[in-house]
Amino acid sequence: MVIRIVLFASPASSNTPFLDVRSYVPPVQIGETMRGASVCRVLASKSKQATAGDYVCGFTGWTQYAVLREGAFEPSSNYPGLREPKDMLSVLGMTGLTAWIGMTKIGEPKAGETVVVSGAAGATGSIAGQIAKINGARVVGIAGSADKCKRLVEELGFDVALNYKDADFKEKFKEATPKYIDVYFDNVGGEILNMCLARAKEHARFVMCGGISQYNSANPEGPSNISRVISMRIKMQGFIVFDHIKDYGKARQELSQWVSEGKIKKTEHILPGGLQVAEQGLVDLYKGSNTGKLLVEVKNPKENPSKL
Amino acid sequence: MVIRIVLFASPASSNTPFLDVRSYVPPVQIGETMRGASVCRVLASKSKQATAGDYVCGFTGWTQYAVLREGAFEPSSNYPGLREPKDMLSVLGMTGLTAWIGMTKIGEPKAGETVVVSGAAGATGSIAGQIAKINGARVVGIAGSADKCKRLVEELGFDVALNYKDADFKEKFKEATPKYIDVYFDNVGGEILNMCLARAKEHARFVMCGGISQYNSANPEGPSNISRVISMRIKMQGFIVFDHIKDYGKARQELSQWVSEGKIKKTEHILPGGLQVAEQGLVDLYKGSNTGKLLVEVKNPKENPSKL
Repeated sequence: MVIRIVLFASPASSNTPFLDVRSYVPPVQIGETMRGASVCRVLASKSKQATAGDYVCGFTGWTQYAVLREGAFEPSSNYPGLREPKDMLSVLGMTGLTAWIGMTKIGEPKAGETVVVSGAAGATGSIAGQIAKINGARVVGIAGSADKCKRLVEELGFDVALNYKDADFKEKFKEATPKYIDVYFDNVGGEILNMCLARAKEHARFVMCGGISQYNSANPEGPSNISRVISMRIKMQGFIVFDHIKDYGKARQELSQWVSEGKIKKTEHILPGGLQVAEQGLVDLYKGSNTGKLLVEVKNPKENPSKL
Repeated sequence: MVIRIVLFASPASSNTPFLDVRSYVPPVQIGETMRGASVCRVLASKSKQATAGDYVCGFTGWTQYAVLREGAFEPSSNYPGLREPKDMLSVLGMTGLTAWIGMTKIGEPKAGETVVVSGAAGATGSIAGQIAKINGARVVGIAGSADKCKRLVEELGFDVALNYKDADFKEKFKEATPKYIDVYFDNVGGEILNMCLARAKEHARFVMCGGISQYNSANPEGPSNISRVISMRIKMQGFIVFDHIKDYGKARQELSQWVSEGKIKKTEHILPGGLQVAEQGLVDLYKGSNTGKLLVEVKNPKENPSKL
């Protein structure tokens, strides 16, 4: 048995909403602790995998303290290349792994190919785009503000970044994909997915990772260009990171190496203020307020745990 | 140079319409001969691959006579297991090959899995469903009339066949897929594709072959359940038979063996009446008038060619 204090909590998966029926996880019930992964400092432990003072990562939910059984957490030793505890939730965590699995195993971008990433400033998209760059692709990011687009190009090395809220976005998008799209990493669904279908090249790979534009829609929009899947021989592959646990080791090794070589810039967006800001953080996640992995700082990690 | 008389003409591919821009084939221009494959009897030949009296298959378009260069036709010797000339257009032709490629290379049905085929009474669907049965799957066909459904079950061995025009089709479809869908072979798109997304099992394979319900729609319908691709980790793969020429030999060998063993019943729907019925045949194809591969008998193959 391990007792921990939560340092950072991830407000929610940016994947499928937890209220969906027949989703890959059961919905969160009214009255239950909201689901979320966190990085924790161990206060006391009977586990062989962690001792007091260690950092671990686990699905604690939104909480300040958690008691977890053996097997319900990952010790920091599972994270090769870990530099600081919160890497366990961002670049080496679920969203970084999601980017790696989707881009490496499904997208498979080749040098010179055109890769489009939507939700490109998000926790997953920002890593996915950088992985495509490492593979020599030309990367076009789509995000929701001029500021995010600036960061994608200037800090993260995207070739082009487009703000989908711009009035001339559609024309700019065509101009940015003159040789059509080889790989589309979809985090948003909806109209942008539909545009990418229209611009898909023969044998394009569509990495279906998320559809945040549709999660809260009562009448989700289907892509009217779906027939392109046939005419362009598109492979559209959905995936969930949990299905690929056997690849986590290799993925974390590559990701941490890329971080250490400066090829991947870590992108986190930390909300200070403790658990009381988590709820608003979740609301803001759907508004696209964050650039990079959105984390709530439940407790300052530098603070002496004995003070608690 | 080879001179032939066309015996059977295929009114059109049941795949993507030929008027689409940026399709896998250029659109047919006004005034051009309508595109179509045919089986022909050679009248005279300078080719080493065929002599007078032989049967060949080629993309002649809708015509009674054609002059074709070497390489623009396939001699009957390319078709292992050929029993009669029109097999070259049906079970061993493009639609049979399409069924084989889609089901064998993308669908990969396993024993006990549930396979759904739409357009199941069509040239491709009827073969696709039978291939799934050969692989030990439970096969549910969807077609557009009670008569077609009866044939699918009684003659072709489908486990269940449902008429999508029935008022209680949706309920029947749910009842027919109690363990959800492992493989969906899509020939129709639209609302049926959307229903199959809602009934997809984890890791389902969606073989995207055709979308005939949407071809002539000014406002094609997108599947609002597209998010299932993610939550159910669906692989949705479009394909065009021409990309798989290297597999034709193996496919024809298997198909002809299955036909000879009685495991695949050939399904053809022949319109007599010569080329003048071809235009109406094409119109009727989109109405679903045919069961099996729709062929126009341009000339009775038993008639003496010297009489022409």
